[in-house]
Amino acid sequence: MAIKTILPEDKLPTQWYNIAPDMPEGSLKPPLNPGTGEPIGPEDLSAIFPMSLIGQEVTTDRFVDIPEEVQEIYKLWRPSPLIRATRLEKALDTPAKIYYKYEGVSPAGSHKPNTSVPQAFYNREAGIKRIATETGAGQWGSAMALATEMFGMECTVYMVKVSYQQKPYRRSMMEVWGAEVLASPTDRTNSGRKILEEDPESLGSLGIAISEAVEDAATHDDVNYSLGSVLNHVLLHQTIIGEEAQLQMEMAGDYPDIVIGCIGGGSNYAGLAFSFMRDKLTNGKDIEFLAAEPTACPTVTKGQFTYDFGDTLQSTPLMMMHTLGHDFVPAGIHAGGLRYHAMAPLISALVNTGNMDAVAYTQNEIFEAAIQFARSESIIPAPESSHAIKATIDKALEAKEAGEEKTILFNLSGHGYFDMSSYDSYLSGSLEDYAYPEEKIKESMAKIPKMG
Amino acid sequence: MAIKTILPEDKLPTQWYNIAPDMPEGSLKPPLNPGTGEPIGPEDLSAIFPMSLIGQEVTTDRFVDIPEEVQEIYKLWRPSPLIRATRLEKALDTPAKIYYKYEGVSPAGSHKPNTSVPQAFYNREAGIKRIATETGAGQWGSAMALATEMFGMECTVYMVKVSYQQKPYRRSMMEVWGAEVLASPTDRTNSGRKILEEDPESLGSLGIAISEAVEDAATHDDVNYSLGSVLNHVLLHQTIIGEEAQLQMEMAGDYPDIVIGCIGGGSNYAGLAFSFMRDKLTNGKDIEFLAAEPTACPTVTKGQFTYDFGDTLQSTPLMMMHTLGHDFVPAGIHAGGLRYHAMAPLISALVNTGNMDAVAYTQNEIFEAAIQFARSESIIPAPESSHAIKATIDKALEAKEAGEEKTILFNLSGHGYFDMSSYDSYLSGSLEDYAYPEEKIKESMAKIPKMG
Repeated sequence: MAIKTILPEDKLPTQWYNIAPDMPEGSLKPPLNPGTGEPIGPEDLSAIFPMSLIGQEVTTDRFVDIPEEVQEIYKLWRPSPLIRATRLEKALDTPAKIYYKYEGVSPAGSHKPNTSVPQAFYNREAGIKRIATETGAGQWGSAMALATEMFGMECTVYMVKVSYQQKPYRRSMMEVWGAEVLASPTDRTNSGRKILEEDPESLGSLGIAISEAVEDAATHDDVNYSLGSVLNHVLLHQTIIGEEAQLQMEMAGDYPDIVIGCIGGGSNYAGLAFSFMRDKLTNGKDIEFLAAEPTACPTVTKGQFTYDFGDTLQSTPLMMMHTLGHDFVPAGIHAGGLRYHAMAPLISALVNTGNMDAVAYTQNEIFEAAIQFARSESIIPAPESSHAIKATIDKALEAKEAGEEKTILFNLSGHGYFDMSSYDSYLSGSLEDYAYPEEKIKESMAKIPKMG
Repeated sequence: MAIKTILPEDKLPTQWYNIAPDMPEGSLKPPLNPGTGEPIGPEDLSAIFPMSLIGQEVTTDRFVDIPEEVQEIYKLWRPSPLIRATRLEKALDTPAKIYYKYEGVSPAGSHKPNTSVPQAFYNREAGIKRIATETGAGQWGSAMALATEMFGMECTVYMVKVSYQQKPYRRSMMEVWGAEVLASPTDRTNSGRKILEEDPESLGSLGIAISEAVEDAATHDDVNYSLGSVLNHVLLHQTIIGEEAQLQMEMAGDYPDIVIGCIGGGSNYAGLAFSFMRDKLTNGKDIEFLAAEPTACPTVTKGQFTYDFGDTLQSTPLMMMHTLGHDFVPAGIHAGGLRYHAMAPLISALVNTGNMDAVAYTQNEIFEAAIQFARSESIIPAPESSHAIKATIDKALEAKEAGEEKTILFNLSGHGYFDMSSYDSYLSGSLEDYAYPEEKIKESMAKIPKMG
């Protein structure tokens, strides 16, 4: 039996899958202009995004061609392997078959370059010389630094100052790939200067860094902004994962009963899941979809499905999605990539229509699962991805209990080699578990704007 | 044209290649007992190695079967990809074709598990319950922690105290894989206690850590010792790299004119090179072999080919090899894996018989090459492997000068994601270049024992 299913290079998908036209009727609501309450148009976004990406944001084409130059760069690390977790199955003594798609093989160590590369490409095609973006822990910043370097563009990364100081390795990585990395708040933008005037010692926040990057893009003609999750076009690019996985599952002679992933903004899970969701939505395939999130930021399991802002400073359009309130600030869990107050509208709509479920886990639960995975499958997973591993182990044990030979597929969205200090905290027993922050959620939810 | 050549799983090599029987006649000299000056026998090694590995150390079989259990574990990350560096070729504007074999895909991030896995396997077969080994920067210790975990064995890693303190992430990695990691010198061994008595604040050294691990193994019946480079059986296991590369080059429709790798103890380069050296030694193929080492530890370019000890404390048999003297301590360069005073006897003999050349580079030279590679090929290479990249770039530029379409193949033995602080030093211009330490080498060479 094959452990690893590798797609031959000539079988690599040449199109991304757009789930929008297959969504349940009426399930998607348009983004609204917060001033007028009216649906936004392309012109509302053209100051910071190229028209090609705005077009992908609203397209009704079921498939979108992947530009050849993007395909060539994908080939540096794609196709990512589909791996049968035989050693984990054995350790769990489960009749379930467990497969995972491993996105940690990308040079940035996660699925993020699947979208940073096409985003850089379309911006370069539009004559853009530089991308401005923000990064917290550094995953997205590295992916964008890599992508712009590949297309000979410049990149400015506004990195939250506390991360800039605490995660020098991620910063070095971006600099190796030629990006300029600034500790945000900076004195380069009005937003940054305003914050520094109030508090010269500010350690920054993702919200501030976003504001700085957007301002940089909006105030320079040849500079655009770029986002690493949530938006439709970002999820579209990530479907390369699922399109490959469909072909690989076929090569392996199997098909998933359950498809699992972790969710922060939703892009890695959408990337794997949507190609299988297509079979459910259009062919009635009986597949269970399960998204795993942290109890410290329980967007889907405890949030509301409603219109809210995508950022703390209320500068984005209003989007219909699961949200804990735009000024909800989650506890400092190690799965930094899952600390987002809201969820991709496409994922939210699928949950809202009963096509997808969610579950939440504490830090100690997910690290226990991560260690079990590392000790059987050898790869040390990212704390984010370990949420998916925990859900997978639970489902595999359920299958054992029921004596069912279920086939489980999950997305191992990244490796944990930059997260060893968090493993250290877990192994030394000093990792804090955060329960649902009920009171905090109630407060931030009260500030969600009332629309419609 | 294919960027990446992936070997189908059913084509994976099932045998390692043993170069010993193909070596030029009389080029290999037996290891000697330093007390008697006579060749050592199996019994001299049986306290710390299983007979199966001692057998591989001296076998004259050209091919050795890879045990099925080892093949199964190899499959977790093998075959490693063969990648055509088209973007680097373009950046260099060279007619040369550049291929590299990427060993950084292993869970430990380097080629080291290719031998730690079979070593753990053979020891378990021999009834050994625990492996004791040393590690400096942590690469070898992680590879052995991973391997023992895969076979349900215990692992004790004596980690040089200064690294234990400075590289907590590598330590956590070993602990994730279930190893016990001790800061050496420890109070568990006579060797450790002796050092601590003299200097309670000792930061340790690789020599001390080796002594502790060997003592641990020699004084416990169910514990053995394990070494990550230099010895014949270690190089044998690494030939999985070259055996795959032979098949992949054939799939790519090409064959190398030049084969390049970095050398510390010699195992990664031997792993790639020996399968092609076979074609040179037995079929007269015209291939250039070039090994790259640091100027700070110029074992082959400036050392002597003579009998010397493998360790500082003179506890090993005497081996015929290139050496800078067994008590030579190189400057603290970032390519920690290349800081060894001697060279594998097999590599040394190939250099000595004119079948292989060597070249030495400074730190700033190799980091400049590493950055150029990362910015074109996207992977951030380990400082060790960057010596091979520098040699490759030089050869590709020579080919450009001469207008020759040479085919170059090199081993990218590991990634640099645990070495970002050294990139930081390079980018900030604070990296020191070490010239050949002429005086120091003269001193340590004077202490090489006079044999025969």
